[in-house]
Amino acid sequence: MAEIDPWGEFKVGDYGHVFKEFGLKPFPKSVSERLSHHLFERGIVVAHRDFEKVAKCIESKKPFVNITGIASSGPYHLGHKADVDLFRFFKSKGAKNFFAVSDLDAFLSRPDSKIPDLATAKKWAVKNVADLLAFGLDEEDIYVQSNRKNKRYYEFAFELSKKITKNTFEAVYGHVDLGKVAANFLQYADILHPQLGEFAGPMPSITGIGLDQDPHARLTRDIAKRLPYKLEVPSFIYFMHQSGLQPGSKMSASHPETAVFMSDSPKDAEKKIKRAFSGGQPTIEEHRSKGGNLEIDLVFEMLKFHYPNTKELERIGKEFSSGKMLASELKQFAIDFFVPLLKGHQEKASENMKKAEKIVYG
Amino acid sequence: MAEIDPWGEFKVGDYGHVFKEFGLKPFPKSVSERLSHHLFERGIVVAHRDFEKVAKCIESKKPFVNITGIASSGPYHLGHKADVDLFRFFKSKGAKNFFAVSDLDAFLSRPDSKIPDLATAKKWAVKNVADLLAFGLDEEDIYVQSNRKNKRYYEFAFELSKKITKNTFEAVYGHVDLGKVAANFLQYADILHPQLGEFAGPMPSITGIGLDQDPHARLTRDIAKRLPYKLEVPSFIYFMHQSGLQPGSKMSASHPETAVFMSDSPKDAEKKIKRAFSGGQPTIEEHRSKGGNLEIDLVFEMLKFHYPNTKELERIGKEFSSGKMLASELKQFAIDFFVPLLKGHQEKASENMKKAEKIVYG
Repeated sequence: MAEIDPWGEFKVGDYGHVFKEFGLKPFPKSVSERLSHHLFERGIVVAHRDFEKVAKCIESKKPFVNITGIASSGPYHLGHKADVDLFRFFKSKGAKNFFAVSDLDAFLSRPDSKIPDLATAKKWAVKNVADLLAFGLDEEDIYVQSNRKNKRYYEFAFELSKKITKNTFEAVYGHVDLGKVAANFLQYADILHPQLGEFAGPMPSITGIGLDQDPHARLTRDIAKRLPYKLEVPSFIYFMHQSGLQPGSKMSASHPETAVFMSDSPKDAEKKIKRAFSGGQPTIEEHRSKGGNLEIDLVFEMLKFHYPNTKELERIGKEFSSGKMLASELKQFAIDFFVPLLKGHQEKASENMKKAEKIVYG
Repeated sequence: MAEIDPWGEFKVGDYGHVFKEFGLKPFPKSVSERLSHHLFERGIVVAHRDFEKVAKCIESKKPFVNITGIASSGPYHLGHKADVDLFRFFKSKGAKNFFAVSDLDAFLSRPDSKIPDLATAKKWAVKNVADLLAFGLDEEDIYVQSNRKNKRYYEFAFELSKKITKNTFEAVYGHVDLGKVAANFLQYADILHPQLGEFAGPMPSITGIGLDQDPHARLTRDIAKRLPYKLEVPSFIYFMHQSGLQPGSKMSASHPETAVFMSDSPKDAEKKIKRAFSGGQPTIEEHRSKGGNLEIDLVFEMLKFHYPNTKELERIGKEFSSGKMLASELKQFAIDFFVPLLKGHQEKASENMKKAEKIVYG
């Protein structure tokens, strides 16, 4: 019997053309192994552009920019935690850190029915920042788009607008909606401004995004070359989005049943995990004989994104696949891991609310 | 013989449709007279939208916002001085004053061949600010777009972008060039942000612009209504642009022979005035018999915009029209007025360079 690979295989699927036509490179296994972090080891980071430049910085202990942003359009869930874990990984490798809580973006690029005004985006920003602090980020790693202390950031967001033609913009995004155009100016600035002389200065930079955001990355790289500041073209790594708890879903704040939120009560979290789509067989007998289907099991996917002990998780994957472990036992394992994690997180987040308010409004 | 009206008549000309279709109102003579400032008395301010609201503030000594901007894309000339004189007039009436030196706009909306980078726009901004201080504005009346101390201004420029549809923008400006779109966001913010709670708060506001900019004013008024801040819809007055020194020209920094710059040497200024297009007759004899043509005389137009003593100027207009004063005498009168004015201005501007640098870069 062949060894089971619990990490499965990356399915290029819809993104095949991105690799072929636009020169996105699969993330090399040899590099993944050297980075020794579960998001790399488990094939969650699947592709890159120019990661070599950043790998070189890490190996030679030179500084590089670590820049990520999340729109403050709702509560954080475990899907966001993975983004933050990746960010924290690069932070641990000696990066200059810039975590953007994108409240202006959240307001500008979401419909009014979701984010009716900037004040709403800022309220979410406070909760999101408290979460980030609870995840272990420091105050100086985080900025809120609407409250960047050094206003060179804003000047730069306007300045770079001249380097994008309307036709390029329309080709990349399929529209020229002005609110979203403005949100994009800020996003380009988020990724590029750390390299300005007023911030960390020109150096390699890394941002983790989903594959679907590659056109955005390509445009940002293009803008970097057109500006008169000798910026390094920014590098990107591409990660798989964590699935939601039901088949075909993403974790989404608009559909609470699809996601485990960082603010979920132990009871709610337990209930959601128990109801999550399972790769177990319909009866215990069938499960014991056929084994569980790891590839479709969404509880196992949650663990794959978040459970840090790779050896232990491999053991569990094998036991479930072989039928030794039941779906209910796998779920209980997940509950025993996630519920205390959430409880601990919530305590820290709540302690950090005052600090978060200061970061957003202060 | 009918009385000669040296101020001529405002020629609606190309702008007739603006009055008819879009509800722009001719500036009422009765109000012009009450305001007792030469730009009003001499029919240079020709039209308005909602000026009543501001007139009421002036009469009842209530505060109102006085907001104007000039792009820092070149040296100031006498045409700019008229804008500043209008601004100073409202300042003298107890306004809250906001004079925007638009360096971001200058860079974003001009071709690279004219303003290749933001640094160039900032260099012009220093000279422009020194001129503004020499004109008698105070440091606290002036801000530079790239260096607004209260960053709520930038947040607001992004925030309002969501209130404009692409179709509206394209209908008004005929394009959706992204650099110019960004410049426009800033211009809307310039006019509206003084009314935010973080600045002067909601109150009537006045901005003087050229008739050609009315579509811009209408869009700004529309945005004001869509924002959740109970802003007063801003009022506008429309002034005639000062002609250049040659027929059919405007004063333009790109064509130095068309303009008297605030930085022109006495010799250059004298030469330009002497070469300016005259309404005098070809020979002295003809001039004495037919009289000069005030309507086409560009030296007299310069005086009309800038010479403060209305009685004296009326006398000169009559003498020139009747043939008693020769073209060369009119020019000498202008030289005797403008050359000392420029000299005095240049001394003050040069004294203010350090302060101007601080306002732009500090």
